[in-house]
This record gives sequence, structure tokens and C-alpha cells, in this order.
Amino acid sequence: MTTERKTPIRYGMVGGGAGAFIGAVHRHAAGLDGEYQLVCGAFSRNQDNNQATAAELNIAPERVYADWQQLLAAEAALPAEQRMQLLVVVTPNQLHVPISSAALQAGFAVFCEKPAGVTLQETRELATVLKQSNQLYGLAHTYLGYPMVWQARELVQSGALGQLRKIYVEYPQGWLTDDLESSENKQASWRTDPAQAGASGCMADIGTHAFGMAEFISGQRVTELCAELKSHVPGRRLDDDGAALFRTAEGASGVLMASQICAGEENALKIRLYGEKGSLEWHQMEPNTVILKPHGAPVQLLRAGRGMPGLGQEANRRCRLPSGHPEGYLEAMANLYSDFAAAIRAGEHGQPSGVPGIAAGLRGMAFIETVAASGSSNQKWLAVPDIRDSL
Amino acid sequence: MTTERKTPIRYGMVGGGAGAFIGAVHRHAAGLDGEYQLVCGAFSRNQDNNQATAAELNIAPERVYADWQQLLAAEAALPAEQRMQLLVVVTPNQLHVPISSAALQAGFAVFCEKPAGVTLQETRELATVLKQSNQLYGLAHTYLGYPMVWQARELVQSGALGQLRKIYVEYPQGWLTDDLESSENKQASWRTDPAQAGASGCMADIGTHAFGMAEFISGQRVTELCAELKSHVPGRRLDDDGAALFRTAEGASGVLMASQICAGEENALKIRLYGEKGSLEWHQMEPNTVILKPHGAPVQLLRAGRGMPGLGQEANRRCRLPSGHPEGYLEAMANLYSDFAAAIRAGEHGQPSGVPGIAAGLRGMAFIETVAASGSSNQKWLAVPDIRDSL
Amino acid sequence: MTTERKTPIRYGMVGGGAGAFIGAVHRHAAGLDGEYQLVCGAFSRNQDNNQATAAELNIAPERVYADWQQLLAAEAALPAEQRMQLLVVVTPNQLHVPISSAALQAGFAVFCEKPAGVTLQETRELATVLKQSNQLYGLAHTYLGYPMVWQARELVQSGALGQLRKIYVEYPQGWLTDDLESSENKQASWRTDPAQAGASGCMADIGTHAFGMAEFISGQRVTELCAELKSHVPGRRLDDDGAALFRTAEGASGVLMASQICAGEENALKIRLYGEKGSLEWHQMEPNTVILKPHGAPVQLLRAGRGMPGLGQEANRRCRLPSGHPEGYLEAMANLYSDFAAAIRAGEHGQPSGVPGIAAGLRGMAFIETVAASGSSNQKWLAVPDIRDSL
Amino acid sequence: MTTERKTPIRYGMVGGGAGAFIGAVHRHAAGLDGEYQLVCGAFSRNQDNNQATAAELNIAPERVYADWQQLLAAEAALPAEQRMQLLVVVTPNQLHVPISSAALQAGFAVFCEKPAGVTLQETRELATVLKQSNQLYGLAHTYLGYPMVWQARELVQSGALGQLRKIYVEYPQGWLTDDLESSENKQASWRTDPAQAGASGCMADIGTHAFGMAEFISGQRVTELCAELKSHVPGRRLDDDGAALFRTAEGASGVLMASQICAGEENALKIRLYGEKGSLEWHQMEPNTVILKPHGAPVQLLRAGRGMPGLGQEANRRCRLPSGHPEGYLEAMANLYSDFAAAIRAGEHGQPSGVPGIAAGLRGMAFIETVAASGSSNQKWLAVPDIRDSL
Repeated sequence: MTTERKTPIRYGMVGGGAGAFIGAVHRHAAGLDGEYQLVCGAFSRNQDNNQATAAELNIAPERVYADWQQLLAAEAALPAEQRMQLLVVVTPNQLHVPISSAALQAGFAVFCEKPAGVTLQETRELATVLKQSNQLYGLAHTYLGYPMVWQARELVQSGALGQLRKIYVEYPQGWLTDDLESSENKQASWRTDPAQAGASGCMADIGTHAFGMAEFISGQRVTELCAELKSHVPGRRLDDDGAALFRTAEGASGVLMASQICAGEENALKIRLYGEKGSLEWHQMEPNTVILKPHGAPVQLLRAGRGMPGLGQEANRRCRLPSGHPEGYLEAMANLYSDFAAAIRAGEHGQPSGVPGIAAGLRGMAFIETVAASGSSNQKWLAVPDIRDSL
Repeated sequence: MTTERKTPIRYGMVGGGAGAFIGAVHRHAAGLDGEYQLVCGAFSRNQDNNQATAAELNIAPERVYADWQQLLAAEAALPAEQRMQLLVVVTPNQLHVPISSAALQAGFAVFCEKPAGVTLQETRELATVLKQSNQLYGLAHTYLGYPMVWQARELVQSGALGQLRKIYVEYPQGWLTDDLESSENKQASWRTDPAQAGASGCMADIGTHAFGMAEFISGQRVTELCAELKSHVPGRRLDDDGAALFRTAEGASGVLMASQICAGEENALKIRLYGEKGSLEWHQMEPNTVILKPHGAPVQLLRAGRGMPGLGQEANRRCRLPSGHPEGYLEAMANLYSDFAAAIRAGEHGQPSGVPGIAAGLRGMAFIETVAASGSSNQKWLAVPDIRDSL
Repeated sequence: MTTERKTPIRYGMVGGGAGAFIGAVHRHAAGLDGEYQLVCGAFSRNQDNNQATAAELNIAPERVYADWQQLLAAEAALPAEQRMQLLVVVTPNQLHVPISSAALQAGFAVFCEKPAGVTLQETRELATVLKQSNQLYGLAHTYLGYPMVWQARELVQSGALGQLRKIYVEYPQGWLTDDLESSENKQASWRTDPAQAGASGCMADIGTHAFGMAEFISGQRVTELCAELKSHVPGRRLDDDGAALFRTAEGASGVLMASQICAGEENALKIRLYGEKGSLEWHQMEPNTVILKPHGAPVQLLRAGRGMPGLGQEANRRCRLPSGHPEGYLEAMANLYSDFAAAIRAGEHGQPSGVPGIAAGLRGMAFIETVAASGSSNQKWLAVPDIRDSL
Repeated sequence: MTTERKTPIRYGMVGGGAGAFIGAVHRHAAGLDGEYQLVCGAFSRNQDNNQATAAELNIAPERVYADWQQLLAAEAALPAEQRMQLLVVVTPNQLHVPISSAALQAGFAVFCEKPAGVTLQETRELATVLKQSNQLYGLAHTYLGYPMVWQARELVQSGALGQLRKIYVEYPQGWLTDDLESSENKQASWRTDPAQAGASGCMADIGTHAFGMAEFISGQRVTELCAELKSHVPGRRLDDDGAALFRTAEGASGVLMASQICAGEENALKIRLYGEKGSLEWHQMEPNTVILKPHGAPVQLLRAGRGMPGLGQEANRRCRLPSGHPEGYLEAMANLYSDFAAAIRAGEHGQPSGVPGIAAGLRGMAFIETVAASGSSNQKWLAVPDIRDSL
């Protein structure tokens, strides 16, 4: 055992003032493992909210900034042992690339909410900035922090399912069943506003999670898709629902469904993968189980839990508790934070080990643009841009 | 209480010799409620099998026929109080229309396995024969005999979900994961043989169940679809997997998935319908529950069971047992038989009340032909033929 | 293949007139596999009901009898090839032994509803009659007809769980939550009437199922128990709820819970067995699955279905359908009928192979009497009588 | 909005060195909401472990103490604005009372792992110390931090179930199926050692959770019980399994089952309560759902989630995330920490609002002593001591 003291990573936050759901999620997750200290922020353009949030979070008054530009300038001017090491970006989508780029250029690691940006083009430019910056960039695909998502990926990689044939991924939510954006619901308003959310509503908000998970677990690359997108709620300006057929480079076919008008659904992300030798499924709302269905043998329930027999190394190290003590969404996000801290401590650059990075961001943008285009196209199949040239 | 004796309906069977799954299903179902007596049959072209099956079933030797043509001729010649009243057709698909037509023309009611035929055109001709025959024709869409399928339909009709927006229906099976047809598996062989099964394998075999259930419960009519079909197993001659986006005349959109290469799946037909005010789902493998998800209120589990509070009349009368005593697939089929018996006793003609009929058959064929065409088309949307002119 | 015709077993019924739940269950079950023909009955002491039931069931008028005494006398006088071969007894409990004894003595096989009688003593006498009669006697412990109950038993016998340590068996129902017997509910009235039901209500009605299943699956013998019984509903004359700690001769300990005042429960019989090497559980309301939990390895879901890999022979032969086509309560009962038919055809006597018999009946009565005594005793442990001397 | 800065509560820890499960749980939970800062500790009697743990946790070297006595003395001597405000006690059971008493007397609030002590007598003395100290004392009954446990309690209090009749509570685990204590498993060793664990193994470790939850949700007081305890593993010195029948002062009866030799089980705490008007159940392994079963109406699934319609205030304020984003065990513990922080800030004394306190501790000890006594007694019913005179 070593006795060298381990000091927490200093981080700052843009966005996440009182009333914003996702900022608090990031702070809970960063706090869970004791690896981080929040030292500065520009939490809201509303300065009352900004100050109140900062006070609640015990931020030193001189490190509460009016906007992200001031934050970057002031923090960069601080001595290395004081200034923040990581900037967390939890603003509406249209600011993701501008802030991330500036932060990377100012010498900070960045952990950004998804999607990476609002167009594929600006995200390609961000990728270039990242390459030049020698910094770390992570993307908050929270669901990729779940231990059993890693277990699923490992099962596929190990050949337990054989050659994959079919992927079903679905993400039904019901919270946009009503016209919330016409009332004062901030969450609904920006997500259905093309100026803030980009070319797509539902597909950018949650379809991209479904897509990212399909590629992550399968290890395959979607090459073309055929989609229908709809706005079921009258007056809504972006899609609130959609589905796509898709094909992968490796020969599998699949179906992706995402919807925010599935009345009665909570947050029911679910994926199923079928191969020649068996299949598996994982449900976000029961995240501690992978259902493994070997062809011609009984279904098995693989369970999360530190030290569980049969659990792969990647899944196991993402569990804090013995099986039967449920871990959830915040722990999944905390796993991303924990790996990001290790990457900072190890002096990594580019994509932090264990954390989705710019590649996931580019793929997500390629998906969003393609699915949006397909939704308004009469052509059956559209190609999903290959982004490997931007990495 | 009346004391007039109720005598069973006399029925005959074509197909269903030893080794055939579905023939036994029909006989179990017909036996369950004591409404039927099997009096004659042509169970197999193999006369050893035919005779042995008949002996096992206690058929009088003079009413075991070498083929369906002899059966129809001989039974028609019997006195009315002896001859069969109903012919059950459980042969491979390509015989469905020829036998059904001949039986109707010979003056017998017909209960036929699905699909109704192998082309829409021959099924339209069958519809004409039926109209001219003054007889009854039912189609064994077994899943439409489940009480909770009727409950789901009634919930939609009652407006409990509001205007429907989204329909997801899926039917994953795994039994054709391997190349069974190259070994001696009869079930696999005819289903993957275009000469016996028609234009489609998976979609004709099970996709049609999914489609029929979607239209039955929603009460809506699918007008166009966009599909991909695949044969994942090398050498297989018909689709073993597919998915389709679809739209209804009433404004809903949907996704239909059917596959027989979903390794590890049993018979997992499932449907979900989403409306403005809530949603519901039903799973064939847990058939005694409808999951009702009202928008903004707790999920409810509606349960089958004779006399259960809240159960609609149509669902209730299809339950034999109090809740908690599971009824299953054979009981669902038995419900079709029971309603068919009542229709015969009541002197109905055309479609027996409570039993899928020629309209369901025509819709199924319209679906099969359209989905097969879409699978090999580059056009995004294909129209599903409207069959109401054939009724 | 043989071509000798198989003729159905002729059976008669005492009890089971219109309005009686269990009589119809027996008739459905007997009809399911085409092995039986109902030829006579004394369905109700109310002769209008008796005649109407008989007409509905297509019984020849001369074989509808006013009471069971007449039935036995008249049937015994018929030629062997006409008279009934099996008498089904579905009356209230206090008539089980008198009718069964008389029927055995008159030369008929008997299939009786549980419990076998109202006292252990009269059931011992019935056992003596059976021994002298050279006839068959079966007891309708329906739940022991489920394929997966046999699978569970086989897993225990095979040593898959190792030495058993713990048994939990529970049977909560809610239908007696209210004082139904004060209204006109016949089912509730006789079950809560000591003159018709015997020394116990809930324990005789359903506790005995739980007890029988524990002994059947475990293969162990309960030697002592410690119980509390209650009547929660004011004015109720027999227990409507109870629980017992118990010990087996082989060293396991267990808990048995049975209740009919568990508001909101349907018919939730469930058993769990724990051994040194693993455990299993089975739920009557999801009867097609055994949950196998090996120690230190993932949970497995063993599934019913004709031909399912890994299913034992006893379970497999009790399945009619491939997996994923749910079979339920009536099929379980039909399995008892099917095995009873085979036993009759094979000329067995005593206990029909595969069907619970007098031993199960004696054990059930030993349980009922002991648990009722324990419920009103201050002694902690009471011995459960060993009934092997009566066999 | 206020702009007064909120500073974290300073806490110290006794126990919880590397290798100890529960210490890390407390630190995760304390970190989750950003309300606490760990400032000192005596983490292990092994000074290498103690120092290494402290370094990993970024504890100032001068506040790492060799034992709890030094910790209390040194911290008490620090200026008020520096010294710890709360001591977390996560040692084996036999130290709970000595450390808690000394800490309270030294002027510190205490949050202690359960059980409160090893005898009821020493816990009564602790209660006296607490009364005299004017300090806060909380007990880490983690499961009472779950939002849906509070929802269950509120449903009972609101009368939704009517008068309670029956309580089933069970807690099967499988981790002591093998003789782990003979190998080097520290968790198993002290829990099966009477000198460290007290009069009971399984009942003290987990039975007390089951008991506490039954009293907490029901709001009723168990007055007598009848138990059997066993050590199934040869050589084990304390019970690893047991069950008890019990009665409450308010007229309900119940069954409590707890076992650590239920091979294949993880941590399956589950409670069911039945009343005249309905019932509810809650499972720790699916903690975000309460299953509500109204008598004569469909089952409802009540779900956790900030702002969920129908959720009570106490449940709602314990949720951080919208429904469908699972929260788990650490969040439950964090809820206790969050309420304890609020109690410290509000200057409360005795039992912190929302946190189990000395009353729960005394009841737990009364249960443990009674159940252990009953396990070795031939008397059927033993009275559970009333502890209200010690409060």
C-alpha cells in the first residue's frame, strides 16, 4: 500500500444552474467516488441563478463567472495547482462545440453532454481542434457507463453469440406526449427548438443514445438506414418520434426505435442482439442484469455485482457493491467520471480510456444528420457518413 | 334451465397426421369444451400414418379417407344427421384455398389454418366462393382467441388510450436459427419451400400474425409499408427475418418485426399501442395480463379471469377459470372453436361471430404480398391493397 | 404404427352441477386429450340443476341419476362394455370418503377432489377399502400435474441442489377477504362450514396443496410443525389464514404460509427449495418456468415445451406444445386425467402411475389435523402422523 | 434564492479500512449529494491499512488516528470550525456501543452501523447517554432510506390498505452457503463469531433489517414471536438461518424469514403487507417500485421518480432523478446522510428527522435477543420487550 495522498481533480461547470436536471446529475456523479472537487462555474446566464447555485455548491465567490468566456480566461490565468483541470459542459446543444473547442484550446480537458454538437461539420472541426490540443475530450453517453453494458459488449466480443445477425434497439419515452413546450417547460422548449437542438428533436436527444449503444455493444458500424420521423404533437417543430431500419458493414440488419410520445413509458432504453449461437438483452430500467439466451440452452441471468462469478473484468471493475445491492444511473455516470479522473492522472490525451470520446460524438452526429435526412426523403436507403477520416 | 340435449358438432380434418404439430392443437382445442366430435379425416397422404392416426383418434374405419377429395365426396353423400358439419384444414399453405373452396362448395363450413392461401388473387376467389356458398369460413388466427387480446381491443375502442399514435408489434422466434430444412425437419422444410409456403417464409408464417393482431387490436388499417426482408441462413430460399415501418389510414405509424432466426427466443409475439392518453401492451407468452399505462398515472395490470372486476364482456366470456389459474394457447384456440360451434348452431354464414374470417385472410395475404414486394424493392413506401371490394 | 382403435374411457361424475367451478374444470381437462367420454352423472341434489347440466353435457337421460347411491347401483348393473370405468367425485369434502369408498367397493376406479376426506381416521379406512378393492384411486392435486413441478422434483432427485436445507412454500389468495359466506356465495359457504369442510378452512382448502407440493418436490417427509391459524374476518368459523414452521425427517427446515385473506392476491402458490449446491423456485401463476439458481453461477430459466433441450423425461411427456405456447391449469389437470386413462388401460391398481393417490391423501389429512391442532395449542412443536402403516 | 454559502458537514470515520465493504458504502453515500467532507479517521487497527486508506482519501496526516480513543480526544481539542461534526461508526458490532457512547459524551453526533449493539442492556445504556448528551444519534438502516419504502409507509398510514391483517417479510441471502469463515473471509469471520457479533448471526445481521422494515412500514409493534433458528453449515457457531411467526399489538399476524444459506439468492429483502382493502409489496432488488394491489381492482405499479404523479411527499423528496433513471442502494444510504446533514444544520438532537435512531436500535436489539431466545426455547410464544421506557 502506498501512502501518497490522492488529491481530487478540480473541475468547473458551464450550465447546470438551479432547475437544470443534467447539471445536478453530473455533480452527484462526480461526488460519488470522492475523486473530484467542483471549484468554479458559470451555471446560468441569469446571474441570480448563477450566484445562488454557486453558493449552494460552496464555490468561492471569485470563481463564479458570468459566462463561459470569462470562466475560461480567468481559470487559464490561475496557477496550475489551483486552476480547474476539467470543464464539464451541460448547456443546450448549440453551445457544445463552441465551448468545448475554446476550452480545449485554452488547455482544459472537456467532458460534454451529448450530442457532441448540432452538425456533423462543426463536430469534425472540433475533432481537429482536439487533435491539435493534446487534451482529453469525453462525451456523457451515460448509459455506456453501466457495468452490464460492458458485459454485453464483452460477450459479443468473446464470440458467445457467434456472428451477429440482428440488432433491435428501442428507446420509448412518454414525457413529450403533451405540448409541454407551449407551457413554461424549459426542458421541452429547447429540445423542440431547431435553433438550440439542431436538425432533430427525439433522434438527437435519445435516438443517438440508442444508436451509440447499438454500435458500442455490437462492435459493428451502421452503414445505411431507412427512417420515418414524425411530430405527433400538433405545432411541434422537431420530430418527437421515429424508427429506422438499418444495416451494418459486418452484415447484420437492425431496427432502431425512439420516441418521446410513448405515453406511459418512462425511460425504457432496451437493446437486443441476436447471433448464430445465441442472443442477449439489456434494459436500462433494470440495468443490473444481462439476459443471455444461448441457442438451445436455458436462458441465463447475468448479474452485476463486485466479484460476481462469470463477470468480465470491465464490468466487474465498474461495480462498487456486491450483487443484490442495486446500482443505477448515477453510478453509471460516476463510472465515466472515475475513468476520466484516472485518464487525467495518467496524462492521457484524446479519448479517455473507458469514456466515450470524439469518435462516439462524430458517429452520433452522422446518425442524427442521416436519420433526419431519411425522414424527409423518398429514397429508401441513405448512407451513414463514415467518420474515421476525422479521427 | 333448459333440458334440451346439446349434441356436439361433427367435424372432419384434412392434414394433422402423426408428427404434425398443428393438427393435434386443433383436436385438443376442439375437445376442451366438449362441443365437438371428430368423425372423419384424411390425415396424411401416407396411408400408414393416415390409418394409424385415425385409429388413435377412434375414427370409424369407413370414414378414414385417402385424400380430401374422397372425404368431401363421401361425407356429402351421408345423411345430414351423420355427415360432418365442419372441415378443419391443417395442410401446408398451397392447399388451403383449393380445399377450402371445394369444401364450401360441397356445403361444409370451413376452419382453415393461416395464411388463407398463397396469393392474394386466389384468396379473393375464395372470398367469392364463400359469398356464393352461404357457408361459414373461419381462419385459425389462434392469438385472436386470447381473452386479453379482446380486452386490449376493447380498451382501444373505449377510448382509454385516446387517438392512437404508435404501434409496435414484434414476433421473434429462434427455431430457424440453424439450417433445419437440410436435415429431415418437415416443419422447416415446407415453410422454407416457395412451392408450398408461397412468396414469403417468415412473414407468411408469423409476420401475418403480427400484422393481423395490430389491425385487430387497433381497429386501424395499414395503408403503406416499407420493409427489409432477409434470409440469414445460407441457402435458405425464403425470408427468415424481416421488419417493416408502416402507416395507417387513421394516422398512426408503426413498426412490425418478425424473425425466426432470433436465437434463444421461443414464441415472443408482443404488441404495444400508444395513444394520446395512454398505452397498453400484451405478450403472448404471458397472455393473461394486459399492461395498461395511463399517461400520468400508475401502470395497471389487467388480468384475465372469469368474473374479474373491470374485465370487458368479450374478454370475460372467453375465460373459463377464475384469475390466477392460467389459461394458455390451447384455450385461445378453443375459444375460436367454441364461437364457431355457436355460429353453426345459430345458422350464421360468412364470418362466424368472434372468429377471424375471410376479411382477416385477405388482409393477411395483402400484407404478405406487399411486404415481400417491399423487401425486394428500392421504392420506400408500397401501398397495401385494400381488400374491402372482395368482401 | 398400430391401427387398433383406441376407445375413450367412460366416466361418471358426482357433483359438478351448474354453478360449481371444479366440476367444469374436470370436464374440460378430461376432454382436452380426447381420452374420455362422460357417460353418466349425479350432478346436483337439485334435480332441475341435475337435469339441465346433464342435457348441456349430452348425457343419455337414463344415465342421469338423482344421487350417487343410485348412480353406483345402476352403473354397476350395466354390461361391462357400457358402464362407467371411472367415477369423478367433486362434492364438498364431507362426502369424499363415503362416495369414494362405496365406488371402490362397487368396482369403480375413483378420481376425487382433495382433500381426501375430513378426518385422517376416515381416510385411513378409505385406504383399507382401496387395498381390498383392487381398484385405482387418484386425488386431484391439480398442481402436481404441471410439467415443471415434475422438472423441479427431478432436479432435486438428480442432486442438482445438493442436500436440501430450506423449503419455503406459500399460497396466498385474496378471495375470502370479505365475509362472502354471509351473502349467497356457495363456494365460500361450504368452505367455511365445519360440517362440510372439516377441521380447517384455509389449511384444508389450500394449505394442503402447499404441503403436498413441498413433500412431492423435495421428496422429504415433514415430521413436526408449529403453526398459528387465524380467522381474520369476524364471524368466520374456520381459519382463513395461517403459517407454520416445519422440520423434515431428512434435516431440512421450512416455512409454509397459506391465506385466503391476502387482499389483491389471486392464486399465488409458490415454492422455493434451497440446497447446498443451489436452489429452485416455481410459481403456479407462471407455471412454465422453473427458476434454477446454482450456487456461484448465473440463474437459469428452465422452460416447459415439448422437446425443450434439458427438460427431463417426466416433464417433457407432460407438455403438448413447443415452448413459448403457454399451457396452464387445465392442461395440468388434463395430465392427471391422461395418466389415469393410461393406468386404467394398463390394468393398474392402487395409485395410478403419475397421479397422486391415497398416500398423498393420507399425508394431506395428517397435515390438516396437525396444523389445526397446532393452531390451538401452546405446545411449540407437534408431530405430524406417519401414515405409512396405512398404505 | 439565497447566496449564503453552504459549507459541507465535516465527518470522521472509525473502521472502514481497505477491504471493508461498508466503510466505502458510507463514503460513497456521503459524497453523493456534496453535503459532507471526510476530515479524519481511524480506519483500521492495522496501521499500514489505516495510513494507506487515509492517503487514498486525502485525509490530512495529522488527522489520521491510531484508534478511536485518540480520534475522539484529538478532535474534541480542535477549534469548533475545524473539528469533525459527525462520527461514522463502521466497526464490528461489539464496538458499536462503546464508541457511540464515548463520541456522544465527547460532543459529537454519531451515525452507527446496525445493529446498535450486542445486547439490549448496553443499548438501553446508550439511550441514556444520548438523552444526557443533547446530541444526534442515527442508525444506518440503509433500506429505510429508499423512497419507495417511505411510499409504502405512507400508503399504510393513509389507510389505502385498511386495517392490516398480515405481514410477510423475508430476507434470503446465499453468501454463507459455504463455510467461508474457515477460510480467510473477514466478512464471514466476525459475523459468525459470538464475541464480535453478539447472540445471533443471521438474525442480527439481516433479520434485524427485516424486522425493522416490518415495524417501520406497518407502523405496528411486534409483541410476541415464535422462532426456529438453525446453523446449517457444520461447525458454524451462530445461526445462519431462521424464521419466526409473530403478532403485533394492533392485531396483525406475520411471518419473518431470514437466511444466509439460501444458495443462489443475492440480497432479496422483500416485504408484503395485507389489509382489509388491499395490499402492497416492495422488493429491495427492484427498489423503485411499490406494487399496490387494491382489493377488487387491478394491480398498480407505483414508481419512484422526482415529480411522479401520485408519489407522496416523503418519497418524492428522496428521489433525485425523474422516473426511469434507476436509483439504488447508495442513493438510499445517501438519503440518510442528507437528512442527517439537515438535522445537524437545523440543530436537532436525539433522532435526526428522517433517519432511524435509538428507538430503531432498541427495537432491533429487543428483536435479536427475543428471536435468539425463542430459537432455543420450547415455549411457543415469547414476548418482545417493550423499549419505550428507555426513550
